[in-house]
Amino acid sequence: MDALVNGVAASSIAISDRGLHYGDGLFETMLLKNGTVPLWPRHYRRLLADASRLGLTVPAEPALRDEITELAAGRESGVIKLMLTAGSGPRGYRRGDAQPSRILLFSKPHDYPAAFWQEGIRVRFCDMRLSRNRRLAGIKHLNRLENVLARNEWDDPAITEGLVLDEHDRVIEATSCNLFLLNGSDLRTPQLTFSGVNGIMREIVLETSRRLGLSVAETELSNRDVLEADGVFLTNSVVGIWPVRQIETVTWAISPVIYKLQRQINNEYGV
Amino acid sequence: MDALVNGVAASSIAISDRGLHYGDGLFETMLLKNGTVPLWPRHYRRLLADASRLGLTVPAEPALRDEITELAAGRESGVIKLMLTAGSGPRGYRRGDAQPSRILLFSKPHDYPAAFWQEGIRVRFCDMRLSRNRRLAGIKHLNRLENVLARNEWDDPAITEGLVLDEHDRVIEATSCNLFLLNGSDLRTPQLTFSGVNGIMREIVLETSRRLGLSVAETELSNRDVLEADGVFLTNSVVGIWPVRQIETVTWAISPVIYKLQRQINNEYGV
Repeated sequence: MDALVNGVAASSIAISDRGLHYGDGLFETMLLKNGTVPLWPRHYRRLLADASRLGLTVPAEPALRDEITELAAGRESGVIKLMLTAGSGPRGYRRGDAQPSRILLFSKPHDYPAAFWQEGIRVRFCDMRLSRNRRLAGIKHLNRLENVLARNEWDDPAITEGLVLDEHDRVIEATSCNLFLLNGSDLRTPQLTFSGVNGIMREIVLETSRRLGLSVAETELSNRDVLEADGVFLTNSVVGIWPVRQIETVTWAISPVIYKLQRQINNEYGV
Repeated sequence: MDALVNGVAASSIAISDRGLHYGDGLFETMLLKNGTVPLWPRHYRRLLADASRLGLTVPAEPALRDEITELAAGRESGVIKLMLTAGSGPRGYRRGDAQPSRILLFSKPHDYPAAFWQEGIRVRFCDMRLSRNRRLAGIKHLNRLENVLARNEWDDPAITEGLVLDEHDRVIEATSCNLFLLNGSDLRTPQLTFSGVNGIMREIVLETSRRLGLSVAETELSNRDVLEADGVFLTNSVVGIWPVRQIETVTWAISPVIYKLQRQINNEYGV
Protein backbone atom coordinates (compact mmCIF):
# COMPACT_ATOMS: atom_id res chain seq x y z
CA MET A 1 0.00 0.00 0.00
CA ASP A 2 1.45 3.35 -1.09
CA ALA A 3 -1.23 5.74 0.08
CA LEU A 4 -3.94 6.28 2.69
CA VAL A 5 -6.83 8.67 2.15
CA ASN A 6 -8.66 9.42 5.38
CA GLY A 7 -7.16 6.27 6.83
CA VAL A 8 -8.14 3.95 3.98
CA ALA A 9 -5.76 2.47 1.38
CA ALA A 10 -6.38 4.32 -1.88
CA SER A 11 -4.76 5.33 -5.14
CA SER A 12 -7.15 8.18 -5.94
CA ILE A 13 -9.02 11.03 -4.32
CA ALA A 14 -12.55 12.35 -4.80
CA ILE A 15 -12.82 14.52 -7.89
CA SER A 16 -14.61 17.16 -5.82
CA ASP A 17 -11.69 17.63 -3.40
CA ARG A 18 -10.89 21.29 -2.78
CA GLY A 19 -7.20 20.43 -2.81
CA LEU A 20 -7.54 19.76 -6.53
CA HIS A 21 -9.96 22.56 -7.36
CA TYR A 22 -8.29 25.39 -5.46
CA GLY A 23 -5.11 24.12 -3.83
CA ASP A 24 -7.13 24.61 -0.64
CA GLY A 25 -4.85 22.76 1.75
CA LEU A 26 -1.42 22.13 3.22
CA PHE A 27 1.36 19.59 2.93
CA GLU A 28 4.31 18.18 4.82
CA THR A 29 7.15 16.27 3.15
CA MET A 30 8.66 13.98 5.75
CA LEU A 31 11.79 11.85 5.85
CA LEU A 32 11.24 8.20 6.82
CA LYS A 33 14.47 6.79 8.26
CA ASN A 34 15.04 3.58 10.20
CA GLY A 35 11.30 3.04 10.05
CA THR A 36 10.42 6.29 11.81
CA VAL A 37 9.75 9.94 10.95
CA PRO A 38 12.41 11.66 13.08
CA LEU A 39 10.99 15.17 12.66
CA TRP A 40 7.33 14.23 13.15
CA PRO A 41 6.72 16.44 16.24
CA ARG A 42 7.93 19.48 14.30
CA HIS A 43 5.94 18.56 11.20
CA TYR A 44 2.79 18.24 13.26
CA ARG A 45 3.46 21.52 15.04
CA ARG A 46 3.88 23.36 11.73
CA LEU A 47 0.77 21.72 10.30
CA LEU A 48 -1.20 23.00 13.29
CA ALA A 49 0.18 26.51 12.93
CA ASP A 50 -0.40 26.69 9.15
CA ALA A 51 -3.88 25.13 9.42
CA SER A 52 -4.88 27.68 11.99
CA ARG A 53 -3.86 30.48 9.58
CA LEU A 54 -5.95 28.93 6.78
CA GLY A 55 -8.89 28.02 9.01
CA LEU A 56 -8.49 24.25 8.57
CA THR A 57 -9.00 21.60 11.25
CA VAL A 58 -6.12 19.17 11.88
CA PRO A 59 -6.76 15.57 12.98
CA ALA A 60 -5.59 14.72 16.50
CA GLU A 61 -1.87 13.92 16.69
CA PRO A 62 -2.16 10.29 17.85
CA ALA A 63 -4.62 9.42 15.05
CA LEU A 64 -2.43 10.95 12.38
CA ARG A 65 0.70 9.35 13.85
CA ASP A 66 -1.01 5.95 13.80
CA GLU A 67 -1.80 6.33 10.11
CA ILE A 68 1.81 7.27 9.36
CA THR A 69 2.96 4.21 11.30
CA GLU A 70 0.56 2.07 9.28
CA LEU A 71 1.86 3.45 5.98
CA ALA A 72 5.48 3.09 7.10
CA ALA A 73 5.02 -0.52 8.29
CA GLY A 74 7.68 -2.81 6.82
CA ARG A 75 9.52 0.13 5.29
CA GLU A 76 12.94 1.25 6.36
CA SER A 77 13.35 4.54 4.54
CA GLY A 78 11.72 6.84 2.05
CA VAL A 79 9.62 9.97 1.95
CA ILE A 80 6.10 10.35 3.33
CA LYS A 81 4.04 13.22 2.03
CA LEU A 82 1.05 14.34 4.03
CA MET A 83 -1.57 16.55 2.42
CA LEU A 84 -4.38 18.07 4.45
CA THR A 85 -7.02 19.55 2.16
CA ALA A 86 -10.27 21.36 2.90
CA GLY A 87 -12.06 18.23 1.62
CA SER A 88 -15.02 17.83 -0.69
CA GLY A 89 -17.75 20.39 -0.86
CA PRO A 90 -20.20 21.98 -3.26
CA ARG A 91 -18.96 24.05 -6.20
CA GLY A 92 -17.52 27.46 -5.34
CA TYR A 93 -14.88 29.11 -3.17
CA ARG A 94 -17.00 29.00 -0.03
CA ARG A 95 -15.96 26.08 2.17
CA GLY A 96 -19.34 25.71 3.84
CA ASP A 97 -19.29 22.55 5.93
CA ALA A 98 -16.68 20.69 3.88
CA GLN A 99 -14.66 18.36 6.14
CA PRO A 100 -10.87 18.19 5.70
CA SER A 101 -9.30 15.22 3.91
CA ARG A 102 -5.95 13.77 4.89
CA ILE A 103 -3.81 12.11 2.28
CA LEU A 104 -0.63 10.15 3.06
CA LEU A 105 1.70 9.05 0.28
CA PHE A 106 4.83 6.94 0.44
CA SER A 107 7.69 7.43 -2.05
CA LYS A 108 10.98 5.57 -2.34
CA PRO A 109 14.08 7.14 -0.77
CA HIS A 110 15.79 9.75 -2.92
CA ASP A 111 18.95 8.64 -4.77
CA TYR A 112 21.00 11.83 -4.72
CA PRO A 113 24.77 11.15 -4.84
CA ALA A 114 26.73 11.49 -1.58
CA ALA A 115 28.74 14.26 -3.28
CA PHE A 116 25.74 16.58 -2.90
CA TRP A 117 26.36 16.64 0.86
CA GLN A 118 30.17 16.45 0.76
CA GLU A 119 31.22 18.49 -2.27
CA GLY A 120 28.10 20.62 -2.67
CA ILE A 121 25.64 21.27 -5.47
CA ARG A 122 25.40 23.60 -8.45
CA VAL A 123 22.63 26.18 -8.33
CA ARG A 124 21.21 28.87 -10.62
CA PHE A 125 19.11 32.00 -10.25
CA CYS A 126 15.55 31.59 -11.56
CA ASP A 127 13.75 34.25 -13.61
CA MET A 128 10.34 33.51 -12.04
CA ARG A 129 9.54 35.97 -9.27
CA LEU A 130 7.59 34.94 -6.15
CA SER A 131 4.57 37.05 -5.37
CA ARG A 132 4.23 38.67 -1.96
CA ASN A 133 1.29 38.04 0.36
CA ARG A 134 1.48 38.42 4.14
CA ARG A 135 -1.53 36.15 4.61
CA LEU A 136 0.15 33.22 2.83
CA ALA A 137 3.85 33.88 3.52
CA GLY A 138 5.64 31.01 5.26
CA ILE A 139 2.72 28.59 4.88
CA LYS A 140 3.40 25.21 3.23
CA HIS A 141 0.15 25.38 1.24
CA LEU A 142 -0.84 23.61 -1.96
CA ASN A 143 -0.66 26.67 -4.25
CA ARG A 144 2.77 25.90 -5.66
CA LEU A 145 2.55 26.97 -9.28
CA GLU A 146 5.34 29.49 -8.75
CA ASN A 147 7.68 26.73 -7.54
CA VAL A 148 6.68 24.60 -10.53
CA LEU A 149 7.41 27.42 -12.99
CA ALA A 150 10.73 28.17 -11.32
CA ARG A 151 11.81 24.51 -11.30
CA ASN A 152 10.86 24.03 -14.93
CA GLU A 153 13.12 26.83 -16.11
CA TRP A 154 16.07 24.47 -16.48
CA ASP A 155 16.71 20.91 -17.63
CA ASP A 156 20.47 20.66 -17.10
CA PRO A 157 20.91 17.74 -14.67
CA ALA A 158 24.20 19.28 -13.45
CA ILE A 159 22.13 22.03 -11.80
CA THR A 160 20.33 20.75 -8.73
CA GLU A 161 18.47 23.77 -7.43
CA GLY A 162 17.35 27.25 -8.42
CA LEU A 163 17.30 30.33 -6.19
CA VAL A 164 14.09 32.31 -6.36
CA LEU A 165 13.64 36.04 -5.80
CA ASP A 166 10.45 37.90 -4.99
CA GLU A 167 8.82 40.72 -6.96
CA HIS A 168 11.10 43.19 -5.14
CA ASP A 169 14.23 41.25 -6.18
CA ARG A 170 14.88 39.92 -2.71
CA VAL A 171 16.23 36.39 -2.58
CA ILE A 172 13.72 34.22 -0.70
CA GLU A 173 14.56 30.52 -1.06
CA ALA A 174 15.32 27.76 -3.55
CA THR A 175 12.52 25.95 -5.40
CA SER A 176 12.26 23.25 -2.69
CA CYS A 177 14.81 24.35 -0.06
CA ASN A 178 15.52 27.25 2.25
CA LEU A 179 18.69 29.29 1.80
CA PHE A 180 21.50 30.24 4.21
CA LEU A 181 24.51 32.53 3.75
CA LEU A 182 27.64 32.40 5.87
CA ASN A 183 30.11 35.25 6.34
CA GLY A 184 32.70 34.42 8.99
CA SER A 185 30.58 33.36 11.95
CA ASP A 186 27.53 35.34 10.76
CA LEU A 187 24.69 33.23 9.42
CA ARG A 188 21.87 34.88 7.47
CA THR A 189 18.68 33.52 5.94
CA PRO A 190 15.94 35.40 4.08
CA GLN A 191 13.08 36.65 6.20
CA LEU A 192 9.75 35.13 5.16
CA THR A 193 7.38 37.99 5.94
CA PHE A 194 5.95 38.20 2.42
CA SER A 195 6.91 35.01 0.55
CA GLY A 196 8.50 31.61 0.94
CA VAL A 197 8.00 28.49 3.01
CA ASN A 198 8.97 28.35 6.67
CA GLY A 199 10.95 25.10 6.50
CA ILE A 200 11.45 22.76 9.41
CA MET A 201 15.13 22.22 8.63
CA ARG A 202 15.48 26.01 8.42
CA GLU A 203 14.12 26.23 11.97
CA ILE A 204 16.49 23.48 13.14
CA VAL A 205 19.51 25.13 11.48
CA LEU A 206 18.64 28.46 13.14
CA GLU A 207 18.34 26.82 16.58
CA THR A 208 21.47 24.69 16.16
CA SER A 209 23.55 27.60 14.85
CA ARG A 210 22.65 29.74 17.83
CA ARG A 211 23.71 26.95 20.16
CA LEU A 212 27.01 26.58 18.28
CA GLY A 213 27.68 30.28 18.88
CA LEU A 214 27.02 31.64 15.41
CA SER A 215 25.38 35.03 15.03
CA VAL A 216 22.05 34.38 13.32
CA ALA A 217 19.81 36.80 11.41
CA GLU A 218 16.61 36.56 9.37
CA THR A 219 16.91 39.49 7.01
CA GLU A 220 16.43 40.93 3.53
CA LEU A 221 18.97 39.56 1.05
CA SER A 222 19.85 40.35 -2.56
CA ASN A 223 21.48 38.12 -5.16
CA ARG A 224 24.62 40.19 -4.59
CA ASP A 225 24.58 39.14 -0.92
CA VAL A 226 24.49 35.54 -2.12
CA LEU A 227 27.41 35.96 -4.50
CA GLU A 228 29.49 37.80 -1.88
CA ALA A 229 28.94 35.25 0.91
CA ASP A 230 31.85 33.09 2.17
CA GLY A 231 29.56 30.07 2.09
CA VAL A 232 26.08 29.20 0.85
CA PHE A 233 23.90 26.23 1.72
CA LEU A 234 20.37 24.95 1.19
CA THR A 235 18.19 23.02 3.60
CA ASN A 236 15.04 20.96 3.71
CA SER A 237 13.75 18.28 6.03
CA VAL A 238 14.35 15.43 3.56
CA VAL A 239 17.94 16.18 2.52
CA GLY A 240 19.11 18.11 5.57
CA ILE A 241 21.92 20.47 4.47
CA TRP A 242 23.37 20.74 0.98
CA PRO A 243 26.39 23.03 0.61
CA VAL A 244 26.42 25.07 -2.62
CA ARG A 245 29.68 24.84 -4.58
CA GLN A 246 28.68 26.91 -7.61
CA ILE A 247 26.09 29.53 -8.62
CA GLU A 248 26.28 30.67 -12.21
CA THR A 249 30.09 31.11 -12.62
CA VAL A 250 30.92 31.76 -8.95
CA THR A 251 32.41 28.85 -7.02
CA TRP A 252 32.98 28.17 -3.33
CA ALA A 253 35.12 25.85 -1.23
CA ILE A 254 32.81 24.27 1.37
CA SER A 255 33.14 26.02 4.74
CA PRO A 256 33.99 23.80 7.73
CA VAL A 257 31.08 25.48 9.54
CA ILE A 258 28.66 23.85 7.08
CA TYR A 259 30.15 20.38 7.74
CA LYS A 260 29.89 21.05 11.46
CA LEU A 261 26.18 21.93 11.16
CA GLN A 262 25.59 18.80 9.06
CA ARG A 263 27.25 16.58 11.70
CA GLN A 264 25.52 18.24 14.62
CA ILE A 265 22.05 17.97 13.07
CA ASN A 266 22.69 14.43 11.91
CA ASN A 267 23.71 13.41 15.44
CA GLU A 268 20.80 15.14 17.06
CA TYR A 269 17.92 14.54 14.62
CA GLY A 270 19.14 11.66 12.45
CA VAL A 271 18.67 13.71 9.26
CA MET B 1 -22.42 10.18 -15.16
CA ASP B 2 -21.24 13.41 -13.57
CA ALA B 3 -17.57 13.45 -14.52
CA LEU B 4 -15.11 12.32 -17.16
CA VAL B 5 -11.39 11.98 -16.46
CA ASN B 6 -9.37 11.70 -19.67
CA GLY B 7 -12.54 10.67 -21.44
CA VAL B 8 -13.58 7.94 -19.00
CA ALA B 9 -16.46 8.17 -16.50
CA ALA B 10 -14.92 8.64 -13.04
CA SER B 11 -15.58 10.02 -9.59
CA SER B 12 -11.95 10.30 -8.55
CA ILE B 13 -8.53 11.30 -9.87
CA ALA B 14 -5.08 9.76 -9.40
CA ILE B 15 -3.59 10.68 -6.05
CA SER B 16 -0.36 11.64 -7.84
CA ASP B 17 -2.01 14.30 -10.02
CA ARG B 18 -0.05 17.54 -10.08
CA GLY B 19 -3.32 19.45 -9.97
CA LEU B 20 -3.74 18.24 -6.40
CA HIS B 21 -0.11 18.47 -5.32
CA TYR B 22 0.73 21.90 -6.72
CA GLY B 23 -2.36 23.38 -8.35
CA ASP B 24 -0.39 22.79 -11.54
CA GLY B 25 -3.19 23.35 -14.03
CA LEU B 26 -6.02 25.46 -15.39
CA PHE B 27 -9.80 25.49 -15.30
CA GLU B 28 -12.81 26.78 -17.20
CA THR B 29 -16.27 27.14 -15.65
CA MET B 30 -18.79 26.90 -18.47
CA LEU B 31 -22.51 27.52 -18.68
CA LEU B 32 -24.55 24.68 -20.17
CA LYS B 33 -27.78 26.08 -21.61
CA ASN B 34 -30.31 24.44 -23.94
CA GLY B 35 -27.97 21.47 -24.07
CA THR B 36 -24.99 23.43 -25.40
CA VAL B 37 -22.07 25.47 -24.11
CA PRO B 38 -22.70 28.81 -25.83
CA LEU B 39 -19.29 30.30 -25.00
CA TRP B 40 -17.24 27.19 -25.82
CA PRO B 41 -15.12 28.77 -28.60
CA ARG B 42 -14.02 31.49 -26.20
CA HIS B 43 -13.37 29.05 -23.36
CA TYR B 44 -11.21 26.94 -25.63
CA ARG B 45 -9.32 29.99 -26.89
CA ARG B 46 -8.56 31.15 -23.35
CA LEU B 47 -7.52 27.64 -22.34
CA LEU B 48 -5.03 27.60 -25.23
CA ALA B 49 -3.65 31.02 -24.30
CA ASP B 50 -3.31 30.23 -20.59
CA ALA B 51 -1.85 26.77 -21.25
CA SER B 52 0.77 28.25 -23.48
CA ARG B 53 1.82 30.62 -20.66
CA LEU B 54 2.12 27.69 -18.22
CA GLY B 55 3.76 25.33 -20.71
CA LEU B 56 0.85 22.85 -20.78
CA THR B 57 -0.44 20.98 -23.83
CA VAL B 58 -4.16 21.30 -24.62
CA PRO B 59 -6.12 18.43 -26.23
CA ALA B 60 -7.35 19.12 -29.76
CA GLU B 61 -10.58 21.13 -29.86
CA PRO B 62 -12.81 18.48 -31.52
CA ALA B 63 -11.78 15.80 -29.01
CA LEU B 64 -12.46 18.03 -26.03
CA ARG B 65 -15.73 19.23 -27.53
CA ASP B 66 -16.83 15.62 -28.06
CA GLU B 67 -16.20 14.85 -24.39
CA ILE B 68 -18.21 17.89 -23.32
CA THR B 69 -21.05 16.76 -25.62
CA GLU B 70 -20.89 13.31 -24.02
CA LEU B 71 -21.07 14.74 -20.50
CA ALA B 72 -23.89 17.10 -21.47
CA ALA B 73 -25.95 14.38 -23.17
CA GLY B 74 -29.54 14.35 -21.89
CA ARG B 75 -28.94 17.51 -19.87
CA GLU B 76 -30.59 20.81 -20.57
CA SER B 77 -28.73 23.20 -18.31
CA GLY B 78 -26.10 23.39 -15.61
CA VAL B 79 -22.43 24.16 -15.20
CA ILE B 80 -19.55 22.20 -16.71
CA LYS B 81 -16.16 22.67 -15.14
CA LEU B 82 -13.12 21.69 -17.13
CA MET B 83 -9.79 21.26 -15.38
CA LEU B 84 -6.60 20.69 -17.33
CA THR B 85 -3.79 19.63 -15.01
CA ALA B 86 -0.14 18.80 -15.66
CA GLY B 87 -1.08 15.17 -14.92
CA SER B 88 0.68 12.53 -12.85
CA GLY B 89 4.42 12.45 -12.49
CA PRO B 90 7.15 11.59 -10.05
CA ARG B 91 7.50 13.53 -6.77
CA GLY B 92 8.85 17.07 -7.08
CA TYR B 93 8.19 20.35 -8.84
CA ARG B 94 9.84 19.25 -12.09
CA ARG B 95 7.19 18.17 -14.59
CA GLY B 96 9.48 15.83 -16.50
CA ASP B 97 7.40 13.87 -18.99
CA ALA B 98 4.09 14.06 -17.08
CA GLN B 99 1.16 14.08 -19.52
CA PRO B 100 -1.74 16.50 -18.89
CA SER B 101 -5.00 15.21 -17.43
CA ARG B 102 -8.38 16.59 -18.44
CA ILE B 103 -11.22 16.53 -15.96
CA LEU B 104 -14.82 17.41 -16.84
CA LEU B 105 -17.42 17.83 -14.11
CA PHE B 106 -21.12 18.51 -14.37
CA SER B 107 -23.01 20.47 -11.69
CA LYS B 108 -26.67 21.36 -11.48
CA PRO B 109 -27.77 24.83 -12.66
CA HIS B 110 -27.36 27.59 -10.10
CA ASP B 111 -30.48 28.70 -8.25
CA TYR B 112 -29.80 32.38 -7.72
CA PRO B 113 -32.99 34.46 -7.50
CA ALA B 114 -34.00 36.49 -10.57
CA ALA B 115 -33.67 39.61 -8.40
CA PHE B 116 -29.87 39.26 -8.61
CA TRP B 117 -30.06 40.25 -12.29
CA GLN B 118 -32.96 42.71 -12.01
CA GLU B 119 -32.49 44.46 -8.67
CA GLY B 120 -28.79 43.78 -8.16
CA ILE B 121 -26.73 42.19 -5.42
CA ARG B 122 -25.11 43.28 -2.19
CA VAL B 123 -21.34 43.24 -2.09
CA ARG B 124 -18.59 43.87 0.47
CA PHE B 125 -14.89 44.73 0.41
CA CYS B 126 -12.66 41.82 1.45
CA ASP B 127 -9.66 42.19 3.76
CA MET B 128 -7.60 39.56 1.93
CA ARG B 129 -5.17 41.15 -0.54
CA LEU B 130 -4.30 39.50 -3.86
CA SER B 131 -0.61 39.04 -4.50
CA ARG B 132 0.94 40.43 -7.68
CA ASN B 133 2.76 38.30 -10.23
CA ARG B 134 3.08 39.21 -13.91
CA ARG B 135 3.75 35.59 -14.85
CA LEU B 136 0.41 34.41 -13.40
CA ALA B 137 -1.79 37.50 -13.77
CA GLY B 138 -4.94 36.93 -15.80
CA ILE B 139 -4.52 33.14 -15.93
CA LYS B 140 -7.41 30.96 -14.73
CA HIS B 141 -5.04 28.58 -12.91
CA LEU B 142 -5.73 26.20 -10.04
CA ASN B 143 -3.87 28.21 -7.34
CA ARG B 144 -6.98 29.80 -5.86
CA LEU B 145 -6.29 29.92 -2.14
CA GLU B 146 -6.55 33.71 -2.17
CA ASN B 147 -10.07 33.50 -3.62
CA VAL B 148 -10.96 30.89 -0.99
CA LEU B 149 -9.69 33.06 1.87
CA ALA B 150 -11.50 36.11 0.49
CA ARG B 151 -14.79 34.23 0.03
CA ASN B 152 -14.63 32.74 3.51
CA GLU B 153 -14.41 36.13 5.19
CA TRP B 154 -18.20 36.41 5.38
CA ASP B 155 -21.16 34.15 6.06
CA ASP B 156 -24.03 36.62 5.71
CA PRO B 157 -26.22 35.16 2.92
CA ALA B 158 -27.48 38.67 2.11
CA ILE B 159 -24.01 39.46 0.74
CA THR B 160 -23.41 37.73 -2.58
CA GLU B 161 -19.93 38.78 -3.54
CA GLY B 162 -16.77 40.38 -2.15
CA LEU B 163 -14.51 42.85 -3.94
CA VAL B 164 -10.82 42.05 -3.67
CA LEU B 165 -7.91 44.49 -3.75
CA ASP B 166 -4.27 43.74 -4.44
CA GLU B 167 -1.26 44.37 -2.20
CA HIS B 168 -1.12 47.94 -3.53
CA ASP B 169 -4.78 48.54 -2.61
CA ARG B 170 -5.96 48.51 -6.18
CA VAL B 171 -9.37 46.95 -6.72
CA ILE B 172 -8.93 43.92 -9.01
CA GLU B 173 -12.09 41.81 -9.13
CA ALA B 174 -14.69 40.01 -7.01
CA THR B 175 -14.00 36.54 -5.58
CA SER B 176 -15.52 34.83 -8.64
CA CYS B 177 -16.45 37.72 -10.95
CA ASN B 178 -14.85 40.59 -12.79
CA LEU B 179 -15.79 44.16 -11.90
CA PHE B 180 -17.03 47.10 -14.00
CA LEU B 181 -17.68 50.73 -13.07
CA LEU B 182 -19.91 53.05 -15.03
CA ASN B 183 -19.72 56.87 -14.95
CA GLY B 184 -22.03 58.41 -17.55
CA SER B 185 -21.04 56.61 -20.74
CA ASP B 186 -17.54 55.77 -19.46
CA LEU B 187 -17.02 52.14 -18.57
CA ARG B 188 -13.94 51.12 -16.57
CA THR B 189 -12.66 47.75 -15.42
CA PRO B 190 -9.48 46.96 -13.46
CA GLN B 191 -6.42 46.18 -15.55
CA LEU B 192 -5.12 42.68 -14.90
CA THR B 193 -1.40 43.20 -15.40
CA PHE B 194 -0.40 41.89 -11.98
CA SER B 195 -3.39 39.99 -10.52
CA GLY B 196 -6.86 38.73 -11.29
CA VAL B 197 -8.51 36.44 -13.80
CA ASN B 198 -9.10 37.49 -17.39
CA GLY B 199 -12.77 36.51 -17.53
CA ILE B 200 -14.58 35.58 -20.71
CA MET B 201 -17.67 37.61 -19.81
CA ARG B 202 -15.33 40.54 -19.06
CA GLU B 203 -14.01 40.25 -22.62
CA ILE B 204 -17.55 40.06 -24.03
CA VAL B 205 -18.68 43.09 -22.00
CA LEU B 206 -15.69 45.09 -23.23
CA GLU B 207 -16.41 44.19 -26.87
CA THR B 208 -20.15 44.75 -26.57
CA SER B 209 -19.75 48.09 -24.78
CA ARG B 210 -17.44 49.40 -27.49
CA ARG B 211 -20.00 48.46 -30.13
CA LEU B 212 -22.74 50.19 -28.13
CA GLY B 213 -20.66 53.40 -28.20
CA LEU B 214 -19.45 53.42 -24.58
CA SER B 215 -15.96 54.67 -23.84
CA VAL B 216 -14.10 51.69 -22.41
CA ALA B 217 -10.91 51.62 -20.32
CA GLU B 218 -8.88 48.98 -18.49
CA THR B 219 -7.22 50.95 -15.75
CA GLU B 220 -6.07 51.17 -12.14
CA LEU B 221 -8.99 51.58 -9.74
CA SER B 222 -9.30 52.25 -6.01
CA ASN B 223 -12.14 51.42 -3.64
CA ARG B 224 -12.95 55.13 -3.76
CA ASP B 225 -13.46 54.86 -7.53
CA VAL B 226 -15.92 52.06 -6.85
CA LEU B 227 -17.89 54.02 -4.29
CA GLU B 228 -18.00 57.13 -6.52
CA ALA B 229 -19.19 55.32 -9.65
CA ASP B 230 -22.70 55.93 -11.04
CA GLY B 231 -23.12 52.20 -11.47
CA VAL B 232 -21.26 49.02 -10.58
CA PHE B 233 -21.66 45.53 -11.95
CA LEU B 234 -20.02 42.13 -11.81
CA THR B 235 -19.62 39.57 -14.57
CA ASN B 236 -18.74 35.96 -15.14
CA SER B 237 -19.52 33.47 -17.86
CA VAL B 238 -22.04 31.53 -15.80
CA VAL B 239 -24.19 34.37 -14.45
CA GLY B 240 -23.56 36.98 -17.14
CA ILE B 241 -24.03 40.44 -15.59
CA TRP B 242 -25.08 41.14 -12.01
CA PRO B 243 -25.74 44.80 -11.15
CA VAL B 244 -24.54 45.83 -7.70
CA ARG B 245 -27.15 47.62 -5.62
CA GLN B 246 -25.18 48.00 -2.38
CA ILE B 247 -21.57 47.97 -1.16
CA GLU B 248 -21.11 48.42 2.56
CA THR B 249 -23.60 51.30 3.22
CA VAL B 250 -23.54 52.83 -0.28
CA THR B 251 -26.52 52.03 -2.51
CA TRP B 252 -27.19 52.44 -6.22
CA ALA B 253 -30.21 52.52 -8.49
CA ILE B 254 -29.48 50.20 -11.39
CA SER B 255 -28.35 52.12 -14.47
CA PRO B 256 -30.33 51.54 -17.70
CA VAL B 257 -26.94 51.00 -19.40
CA ILE B 258 -26.46 47.83 -17.33
CA TYR B 259 -29.86 46.46 -18.39
CA LYS B 260 -29.01 47.29 -21.98
CA LEU B 261 -25.75 45.33 -21.76
CA GLN B 262 -27.57 42.40 -20.16
CA ARG B 263 -30.14 42.33 -22.97
CA GLN B 264 -27.60 42.73 -25.74
CA ILE B 265 -25.35 39.94 -24.42
CA ASN B 266 -28.31 37.69 -23.73
CA ASN B 267 -29.54 38.16 -27.30
CA GLU B 268 -26.15 37.61 -28.82
CA TYR B 269 -24.63 34.88 -26.66
CA GLY B 270 -27.58 33.34 -24.84
CA VAL B 271 -26.05 34.06 -21.42
